[in-house]
Amino acid sequence: MLDTLNLKLSLDKATYKSEIDRLMHQLRELQNACWGKKLPVIVVLEGWAASGKGGLVKQIISYMDPRGFQVHPIWPPTAEERKYPFLWRFWQKLPAQGHMSFFYHSWYTHVLEERLFKRLETDQVPTVQQLFGQINSFERQMVDYGTAIAKFWLHLSRKELKSRLKDYAKDELTAWRVRKEDWKQAKHYHRYASFAEEMLVQTSTGVAPWTLVEAESERWAQVKVLTHLASTLTTALDQLKIKLSPPSLPAQTQLEITESNLLAQVDLSLSLSEKDYEEQLAKAQVKLRKLQLNIHKYDIPVLAIFEGWDAAGKGGAIKRLTRILDPRSYFVHPFTAPTDEEKVHHYLWRFWRRLPTKGTIGIFDRSWYGRVLVERVEGFASETEWRRAYREINEFEAQLTSAGYVLVKFWLHISPEEQLHRFTERQNNLFKQYKLTDEDWRNRQNWNYYDVAINQAIQRTTTPSAPWTIVAANDKYYARVKVIKTVVETIEAQLKSRN
Amino acid sequence: MLDTLNLKLSLDKATYKSEIDRLMHQLRELQNACWGKKLPVIVVLEGWAASGKGGLVKQIISYMDPRGFQVHPIWPPTAEERKYPFLWRFWQKLPAQGHMSFFYHSWYTHVLEERLFKRLETDQVPTVQQLFGQINSFERQMVDYGTAIAKFWLHLSRKELKSRLKDYAKDELTAWRVRKEDWKQAKHYHRYASFAEEMLVQTSTGVAPWTLVEAESERWAQVKVLTHLASTLTTALDQLKIKLSPPSLPAQTQLEITESNLLAQVDLSLSLSEKDYEEQLAKAQVKLRKLQLNIHKYDIPVLAIFEGWDAAGKGGAIKRLTRILDPRSYFVHPFTAPTDEEKVHHYLWRFWRRLPTKGTIGIFDRSWYGRVLVERVEGFASETEWRRAYREINEFEAQLTSAGYVLVKFWLHISPEEQLHRFTERQNNLFKQYKLTDEDWRNRQNWNYYDVAINQAIQRTTTPSAPWTIVAANDKYYARVKVIKTVVETIEAQLKSRN
Repeated sequence: MLDTLNLKLSLDKATYKSEIDRLMHQLRELQNACWGKKLPVIVVLEGWAASGKGGLVKQIISYMDPRGFQVHPIWPPTAEERKYPFLWRFWQKLPAQGHMSFFYHSWYTHVLEERLFKRLETDQVPTVQQLFGQINSFERQMVDYGTAIAKFWLHLSRKELKSRLKDYAKDELTAWRVRKEDWKQAKHYHRYASFAEEMLVQTSTGVAPWTLVEAESERWAQVKVLTHLASTLTTALDQLKIKLSPPSLPAQTQLEITESNLLAQVDLSLSLSEKDYEEQLAKAQVKLRKLQLNIHKYDIPVLAIFEGWDAAGKGGAIKRLTRILDPRSYFVHPFTAPTDEEKVHHYLWRFWRRLPTKGTIGIFDRSWYGRVLVERVEGFASETEWRRAYREINEFEAQLTSAGYVLVKFWLHISPEEQLHRFTERQNNLFKQYKLTDEDWRNRQNWNYYDVAINQAIQRTTTPSAPWTIVAANDKYYARVKVIKTVVETIEAQLKSRN
Repeated sequence: MLDTLNLKLSLDKATYKSEIDRLMHQLRELQNACWGKKLPVIVVLEGWAASGKGGLVKQIISYMDPRGFQVHPIWPPTAEERKYPFLWRFWQKLPAQGHMSFFYHSWYTHVLEERLFKRLETDQVPTVQQLFGQINSFERQMVDYGTAIAKFWLHLSRKELKSRLKDYAKDELTAWRVRKEDWKQAKHYHRYASFAEEMLVQTSTGVAPWTLVEAESERWAQVKVLTHLASTLTTALDQLKIKLSPPSLPAQTQLEITESNLLAQVDLSLSLSEKDYEEQLAKAQVKLRKLQLNIHKYDIPVLAIFEGWDAAGKGGAIKRLTRILDPRSYFVHPFTAPTDEEKVHHYLWRFWRRLPTKGTIGIFDRSWYGRVLVERVEGFASETEWRRAYREINEFEAQLTSAGYVLVKFWLHISPEEQLHRFTERQNNLFKQYKLTDEDWRNRQNWNYYDVAINQAIQRTTTPSAPWTIVAANDKYYARVKVIKTVVETIEAQLKSRN
């Protein structure tokens, strides 16, 4: 594929000059339009060393308002960054609405340079094929969110690559930029090219296609890149007009019958005596404490997420789960309404930012399921958005588990009667009053709508590697023991599968 | 000092039980009060290895609402963290209003463990004495912001330390927690104790005193720590009532005469012909490009901040400054109104978060001077707050320069007539209209009040290591060349001082 590119293509100076002036003005206007329409833009520049990526970034941004873009040079991951799924560090750098992010190298280096230099093992999990899949999901999620993505591969022949590297090395101003990895690209040109071809084929999707750029003539390359970038932005802005659907209706107007009612099948009479509770709890806590040593030893990240009805006892269960743990080894993060910084990013962004690192236990009090629960019921997410979210969530969770995360998902279930009982109790207890808000009463009125949303969410996001545990929580003793036992069992199973 | 502590102090079980119950309920109520009053709380736990810090954190948080606190275990800094001033990583972890942060080890390890294990060199800059000063400023800034700080030193005799380490090492559940550094503490007990004493003396300030805790009896230690923590919180909450001053008046009501009018002394007729401009600009840009190699080579962080009247040409100057630079080596960060996450933190927090790392150039379009300019004039900061800010800013900048930062501060000065001319031009230019907002017109009406604020700010924050450069900017050519030449000269001076 790459060897059929006509690398002789070039432009005379006069044509170049007039083209580039026109394009730069056009891009400047497009930047303003993106800003006005809150369209996030991702530009990916990949290609051979010395193929002119830096010059291109400089060219593009020289005409732009510096308040609207960020340049992200991507180096090999730091020790810190290696402790997360490989896409983690790119999620941190995603553009907010209206902003443009230029990735000078990108997530693609992971399946290219890392592969060439054998920093990836062949039998590793996730495999290179899985990584391509994760990249495709990632880009599709961004495009669905409304992001415009333009990806460029700047191509050089082996001869040109070598000659440029030699020129660079001679010049004091550029010599420092030539890394030993760049020389290796030249040495293993054909192997690298075959990896690149595979990558281009596997990730040139309908939503985010690659543009191959004949980069031996700098003028040709610049005009081609700018032309494609301008057309990507124009298309994305046009799409926006079509996508602007009417404000979505709250779920109250769309009550549907679910396939099967999982919640109704829960035996809410399950309970434990105080004596059994204390015995079993203590036993499970000690087990967990011991498992923590292995989590630490084998660098395993654990993430437990807690969903449930208001007053179902999430807080109490979390407290018992963590009571005996070393406070340096876990953290609890409660998620409430998103901040304004979070509001201008993809809804998964804030969860990516808070992931536990290897060897620690992260506990999320509420989670990304808000997208298909409260956001659906209250109409904050459109029907298209929350329906799409099931797949996005499954993809996200698969990325976590394939990166070695132990993922435990709880729904704490109580009956509406038990909830009312607890609300009343809270109201009358000065010490607990702060826990009860007007929102809790409103949510309670929407019980039936939540019931549908929860059943559907659990059904659509139950996967072999990330199953749900529905906990009968009318009896707090039973629920707390069930939670901690489930965490223990899941970690034990993961440890066993390592051996 | 430490050897006079009576380590025999202890409590019988019954007294302990009743005391601890009472204290935990009190703390729980205090946490609610802090949450309600938006009071941020910092708890620092330092002391010998195995002195019970972990048990204490567990004890305290077991009674608390997990949505209101974070535990920050502090390990030796990562390679990433070492690229910033040493307080950088603690700024990232400061509690938002209403939250409590428990530091399990803290900034004090830097002047204690790092010192014992010779990770700090004796002739380094900043010196240990300077570090104590930086810590004291840091804590005073937090207290002035309204933060309650409680600091505990848990003390053990050498004999007890050794015996505990041996016990820990024997038990499977605790063995992993004993680091080789802990054994070294026991080995070099007296040296470590003398460092600790020096630290305790130097940093036990009126606003944030240390509490020394006799930690050989766990019961005694827990009751003492909780009692002091409760009293610190109670005092802070009481203080809050006193501090709640009436809403501050905008500066319009408080026009004062400054000592000398620096801005009036600027020769605004300075200008350059187009030919001179292009020659000098190109020459300076090439120089900067070369200096960039040294910045990279010697790992020097550079921070250039741009302040100036609306339409003074900050954007244009930044563009010319960066045009020839490698886009991987610098970033521009524009600061506008704070986000809601930023609003619940100290005003310097958002600038700490964006500092350039070693070897890169950070360019801030507006900066922390907003505190003494727009926040003063508009009345967003009280008079106490903005007056206090001069000192805080000087301290902050001194921390940067003593950590090796090259700091360049610009005020771009234009006349009111020139501003009006540029506003009108913007209004009539479809391409530039977005740059002009209603706020610009309002700021213009406040010209005289800003004039006073700017003069005062420049006078009070001009220091030998962080001087201001006031740039005559009626002529854009002159201003742009002046800016880039100043950056070049400042970096050159810093490089020279290295040799």
